[in-house]
Amino acid sequence: MTQENNGLTTHSFEEYFKKAKRFHGFAAPGVLIGGFMVNKAKKGLPVGTLSKSLCETSHCLPDALQLLTPCTIGNGRLRIISLGHFALSIFHKDAGIGSRVSLDLTKLEPWSEIRDWHMKLKTKKERDYKTLLRHIREAGESILLERPIKIKPGFIGQTKLRTMAICPACGESFPAAVEGLCLACRGEGPYERLGD
Amino acid sequence: MTQENNGLTTHSFEEYFKKAKRFHGFAAPGVLIGGFMVNKAKKGLPVGTLSKSLCETSHCLPDALQLLTPCTIGNGRLRIISLGHFALSIFHKDAGIGSRVSLDLTKLEPWSEIRDWHMKLKTKKERDYKTLLRHIREAGESILLERPIKIKPGFIGQTKLRTMAICPACGESFPAAVEGLCLACRGEGPYERLGD
Repeated sequence: MTQENNGLTTHSFEEYFKKAKRFHGFAAPGVLIGGFMVNKAKKGLPVGTLSKSLCETSHCLPDALQLLTPCTIGNGRLRIISLGHFALSIFHKDAGIGSRVSLDLTKLEPWSEIRDWHMKLKTKKERDYKTLLRHIREAGESILLERPIKIKPGFIGQTKLRTMAICPACGESFPAAVEGLCLACRGEGPYERLGD
Repeated sequence: MTQENNGLTTHSFEEYFKKAKRFHGFAAPGVLIGGFMVNKAKKGLPVGTLSKSLCETSHCLPDALQLLTPCTIGNGRLRIISLGHFALSIFHKDAGIGSRVSLDLTKLEPWSEIRDWHMKLKTKKERDYKTLLRHIREAGESILLERPIKIKPGFIGQTKLRTMAICPACGESFPAAVEGLCLACRGEGPYERLGD
C-alpha cells in the first residue's frame, strides 16, 4: 500500500491501520483488505482521473474508499449497490471507464485465515485475529483480481436535488418531484415521535 | 459547535470547517449546517450512549455524521433512508430512543442565504457563498428543531452477513441466502466488463 498513484494519498500499512481504526472504530479485516483493493483499483486508472466509486457491499469496503479516495457517501462520489460481492470499482466520473477489484477466491488457499474470515467458516470467537492480520498484510494485493470495466450509464450520475416543496402535514421541506405529502408522512418514515 | 457531549470529539467551527473540506472535498453548506445538527442531536442523548444514526438524505449530512460521531456507512452504524428531508437522528443502538434534528423552516427568515440555498431558490452561480457561510455560522443551532424519537425496530438492526456461497457463473462469493446465480449475474450488476 505504498505506491503513489492517481494523485491520492499514499499510506504505509501502519498509517492506514491507524486511520482505519480511528474512522471505522476498529481495524476490521474488510477495511484493511479494502485498502489494498483501493490501491489496486487506482493503479488501473490514468493518473489524475476525476473519479467516482462504487461498492458492491455496504460492509467495510465503503470506509476504505472514503479513507483513501476523494469519494464519500455525502459528496455523491461513492455509491453503494448491495449485491453482496466483496468488490469495489473506481472509474472516470463521466465516462464510467475504470477498474473493478474483487477478492480472487482461487488465491486464498495459502491464506487460510483470510479464506475462513471471508467465507464465514469461523465464528468471531474462533478467529485468530493476529494471524488474520499477518495474512492480510503478507498477502497484500496478491489475492485480488482487477478488471477493466465500464459502469452502465444509469449508475453513474448523482441524483440532483430538484425544486423543493413544503409538506402540508409536517411542515418540512422535501423534493417537489413527490406530490402531496412527503414520504415520511405517508408512513415510510423510520421513527415515532416521542413526547408529543 | 463547542460543547462537549456524549464523549465524542469537540470541534470549533474553524476546525470543523477544515475537516469538512478535507473529507467532503469542499466546505459545503449542508455539511457545515450538518455539524450543528449533529451537535444538537448529541445534546438530546444521555452521555455515553452507544449510538447509531440515521440520515434522511444522502446529500451532505451523512458526512457530518461520519466526521463527528463513531457512525460510518461501512461500520453499519450510519444508515441512509432517502426521504428527501434534511434531517438526521442519533439514537441508542438497541433501544432506538434518541434525537432527531431537522431545519426549522419557520426560523429561516432572518437568514435569507440559508433559506435560498436550502429551498433551491438560487442557482449555484447566484449564491453569495461568503454571506451564506456567515449566516450558517451566526445562525448556528438557532435554525434547528430537535425532537425526541424512537426508531422503529425494522430500521435499527444491521443486516448480518450470512453464510457465503460461490456463484457458479462468475466464481465470486455472495450471501448464500440468494439461491442460484448471484445478483450481478442475474443482470443487476452496474457494469460491463471491458477487454474480455
